[in-house]
Amino acid sequence: MERQTTKSVQNRPIENNTSEAEIRELFDKFAASIREGDLDSIMSFYDKNVVAFDMMPPLEVVGSDTFRQSWENCFTSHFDFPVDFEFIEPKIYVDGNIAFSHCLIYMQGIAKDGKQMEAWMRNTSCLKRVSGVWTLIHEHNSVPLDMASGTALLNLKPDRAVH
Amino acid sequence: MERQTTKSVQNRPIENNTSEAEIRELFDKFAASIREGDLDSIMSFYDKNVVAFDMMPPLEVVGSDTFRQSWENCFTSHFDFPVDFEFIEPKIYVDGNIAFSHCLIYMQGIAKDGKQMEAWMRNTSCLKRVSGVWTLIHEHNSVPLDMASGTALLNLKPDRAVH
Repeated sequence: MERQTTKSVQNRPIENNTSEAEIRELFDKFAASIREGDLDSIMSFYDKNVVAFDMMPPLEVVGSDTFRQSWENCFTSHFDFPVDFEFIEPKIYVDGNIAFSHCLIYMQGIAKDGKQMEAWMRNTSCLKRVSGVWTLIHEHNSVPLDMASGTALLNLKPDRAVH
Repeated sequence: MERQTTKSVQNRPIENNTSEAEIRELFDKFAASIREGDLDSIMSFYDKNVVAFDMMPPLEVVGSDTFRQSWENCFTSHFDFPVDFEFIEPKIYVDGNIAFSHCLIYMQGIAKDGKQMEAWMRNTSCLKRVSGVWTLIHEHNSVPLDMASGTALLNLKPDRAVH
């Protein structure tokens, strides 16, 4: 590719590789915070103006203050923490000051009703870098639905081998 | 486009503005293809290696050949086309050769059982530019679920005014 005339442009692939490593580390730390149910730590990864499309209603969550309530609700109403929670091999794309990733999420834990719960979900995460710091500005978590019954399919497993 | 010189780095915000306009146009054309149910046109927007997290199973769809079958299934099993279909004010982020957007989708049409159907969904789209052409490399479409009943919530409406 003939794009490389100035130093900053020449260094772009290397810079992007560094960014990818930073973002991979961010996901590792973020997942650890979720496993522990550490609300303050979880929220530190989000931009103040994050827009989230989450597993549970509403249709869209706008702003980190509102999203914090969703997370709190998850802790108080749905699961006992710690839980197992993994981003499975996130596929990360980065250029300059934005990045996105997609991956499956594996979660396992004890629901508030005492039942063992296991789920595979899908996650898309979008990030921006400001003053050298990457934050999540958008997050989309979901499971597919069965059109005939209108049921959310929390019991689907991936077709491929994942570790 | 002036992308290949020192000047192109100075002009990055302008270049990104141009890219944003290109992507907004892509969404307009893509939505028009969906409204018409034009399968070949729809598929022309996707990268061969697209990974989709779609409304219906499976958990993940890998590759445009497989995703084409999902779209075909949508035409043959679920809806009569044309339908109403809008990306509502996509929020687009772009830097260099990658971009992402998130927005609500509004869809209205006649289901195969003859019933009028209306739904608000959430869409996240991720794109890359190769040789000047933007393609969708990842798409995530969903609705939230009601945890208590396990029902997929196709009847939610946005809290805010949208046009």
